[in-house]
Amino acid sequence: MQRILSTELARHTGETVTVAGWVHRRRLLKSVAFLIVRDAAGLTQVVVTEPELRARVEELGEESVVELTGTVTANPAAPAGAELTAPVLRVLSAVGVPLPFDLHRPALSATLPTQLDHAALSLRHPSRATALRIAAAATAGFRATLERRRFVEIHTPKIVAAATESGANVFALDYFGRPAYLAQSPQFYKQLMVGVFERVYEVGPVFRAEPHDTARHLAQYTSLDAELGFIADHRDVMAVLTEVVAGMTATVAERTGAAVPTVPAEIPAVHFAEALRIAGAPADEPDLAPAHERALGEWALREHGSEFVFVTGYPMRKRPFYTHPQPSDPVWSNSFDLLFRGLELVTGGQRLHRHADYEAALAARGEPAAAYRGYLDAFRYGMPPHGGFAIGLERFVARVTGAANVREVTAFPRDLHRITP
Amino acid sequence: MQRILSTELARHTGETVTVAGWVHRRRLLKSVAFLIVRDAAGLTQVVVTEPELRARVEELGEESVVELTGTVTANPAAPAGAELTAPVLRVLSAVGVPLPFDLHRPALSATLPTQLDHAALSLRHPSRATALRIAAAATAGFRATLERRRFVEIHTPKIVAAATESGANVFALDYFGRPAYLAQSPQFYKQLMVGVFERVYEVGPVFRAEPHDTARHLAQYTSLDAELGFIADHRDVMAVLTEVVAGMTATVAERTGAAVPTVPAEIPAVHFAEALRIAGAPADEPDLAPAHERALGEWALREHGSEFVFVTGYPMRKRPFYTHPQPSDPVWSNSFDLLFRGLELVTGGQRLHRHADYEAALAARGEPAAAYRGYLDAFRYGMPPHGGFAIGLERFVARVTGAANVREVTAFPRDLHRITP
Repeated sequence: MQRILSTELARHTGETVTVAGWVHRRRLLKSVAFLIVRDAAGLTQVVVTEPELRARVEELGEESVVELTGTVTANPAAPAGAELTAPVLRVLSAVGVPLPFDLHRPALSATLPTQLDHAALSLRHPSRATALRIAAAATAGFRATLERRRFVEIHTPKIVAAATESGANVFALDYFGRPAYLAQSPQFYKQLMVGVFERVYEVGPVFRAEPHDTARHLAQYTSLDAELGFIADHRDVMAVLTEVVAGMTATVAERTGAAVPTVPAEIPAVHFAEALRIAGAPADEPDLAPAHERALGEWALREHGSEFVFVTGYPMRKRPFYTHPQPSDPVWSNSFDLLFRGLELVTGGQRLHRHADYEAALAARGEPAAAYRGYLDAFRYGMPPHGGFAIGLERFVARVTGAANVREVTAFPRDLHRITP
Repeated sequence: MQRILSTELARHTGETVTVAGWVHRRRLLKSVAFLIVRDAAGLTQVVVTEPELRARVEELGEESVVELTGTVTANPAAPAGAELTAPVLRVLSAVGVPLPFDLHRPALSATLPTQLDHAALSLRHPSRATALRIAAAATAGFRATLERRRFVEIHTPKIVAAATESGANVFALDYFGRPAYLAQSPQFYKQLMVGVFERVYEVGPVFRAEPHDTARHLAQYTSLDAELGFIADHRDVMAVLTEVVAGMTATVAERTGAAVPTVPAEIPAVHFAEALRIAGAPADEPDLAPAHERALGEWALREHGSEFVFVTGYPMRKRPFYTHPQPSDPVWSNSFDLLFRGLELVTGGQRLHRHADYEAALAARGEPAAAYRGYLDAFRYGMPPHGGFAIGLERFVARVTGAANVREVTAFPRDLHRITP
């Protein structure tokens, strides 16, 4: 018999159906036993009165996988508005060991390290599973928004010959006897692909050998990258990003029902120099400290009713060499951060697009152009003005759900101490 | 002025518009010069008669990035059905070096290694760009088909503690001073996630330290993975795969106009023992040789009018330890390969789902269960019967387009000899 999901139960009242799932909970009362079965959609209550079946149910460990065929009987008190009665039980996988923690309580009581040690189990808890459903929905919203704007999906190498970008914090590997590195971002590749498709995006893993053990850093995370050509400046990138974040939150709300922040049609933007003034920071500060970002978040909410705020024009010396300077004053850059509730959510900006500008930028920083040759060569062959951004998926989900630690919203996190499961 | 694409030109006849793109070609006739500008959508013909502008056009290297504002004039002979006249030219990026090969000819004349050395340039050629658009469309079709069937997207670790699966051919890396490996597949993780969402998929890179230099192996490729629970056996997996391949080819046809094979509603399936007989191979052959696969492809086309054929039941000893045996005769397995035009396209099957079965399978192969502990523990906590498949994206695109070498359809391939660009 074709299996139905718990959420389909009520519309089969009076019929014989099969449900299947995990033993979420058993309530063994004197005259009756209730077996609560969890499937991907929700919970089904199964009523057990027959003594022989009750004996089998008493033996069943929680999280055993079962299949039950029975009659659907209306019961407004049951989780699905109906329950299964007179069931026939088939055990698909019996659990014979005690669980390291309960899954049927509203919150997981185990510590985060214990949850992560038993990720295959803890992720079954609604609080953990919902975060991953939110991540999936956010990713779908990212893609759909960009596809509508004719961005093309790309897949780029994760093994690279040179430790570029920040230089530090790269994982080294043995590539057929030669040294190689795990890519810290698809930055250079997505830029090159602007020369092919004008507008590209990639969803993929990036790797940082992050030596700090914090609540927001992972050694591997999922980066949602976009890059587009034929822009006037970074403001064209900010307009696309605004649309993308709105598409992500709308898809999260639609698919998961989670509460999401309102993304204004135009997110307030403030130049770095002005941001320092608003935050009460000295005018010669080279970057925004966490307290400054919080102050800007409060300012945006107070003055513009927005939980989001763009800070633009960060000092060139604090941005990577490929950043495009602000034409009116090259001390500043055509870059931006998007802050959400006073925390950095996305970084982006306009990039250099002329070969000579790259050579000058590297020379000014004392970096040898040779290390970037494969990348720079492409700029000899005609690249349009372009820019883009990267959204860290796990950090985005943590900010939207209010999770204190990015590991709570990552299926199998990798960090300084953790490489299993 | 807002830029329009080449394909939008004809509907602006008589208006002043701006187009932008790459100098694809120049035709310098005596009384007139034609500048052919390529953008992401196609080509625009620009008519240059004014002597000063002509002098500037003569200076322009191919692939220079330009912006042109002019009047749209109907011309059925022009690529877009209209051309741009009386243009004003703005050069966004001038190319001052000769190109290593021409992009405006119908086929790239450079050898494949030269194309790959200059990937940022060669990928701009329609033949190469189209293959990547086909890959993007195939991926979109994969996701859309699975989302409709309530599969949830996941992201799993690419850095793992143990070299599992095939054991050999893994890349080793230094993980904060400890040995670690690049994941050869998301196999174990997607299985564990069946315990959370019942049905999951992942699109991501996988890594093989492939020591052979062949036309179909890469050190990194994009794997389209799916896994589903609560199946009766491998035939439920084959039904989903059939739908997925049909969804992929349909999306490729719809988005790119490429010719795609017809996927039958039910792909013919033949058991391994029968496949050997059809291929004229000895009954004790442990695997299908390429000649056998070709013979099966011909048989399926002849007998069933299908370019696709499933071979099921491969001998257990040729399949990985997590493979579920055929219940009626455990010499065979509940696994399958999908052949397309006589070549293996997809591998999949039912997996073991009980902890004790895993322990027995590893013991029978003399493999220590300890190496798989994090993976196996999950099976103590209740896993449903499940199975899945993995599609190599680049190989799929090569088969559909008829490319002789998988590198022709990969943006920046990685292999034994190549790690740049």
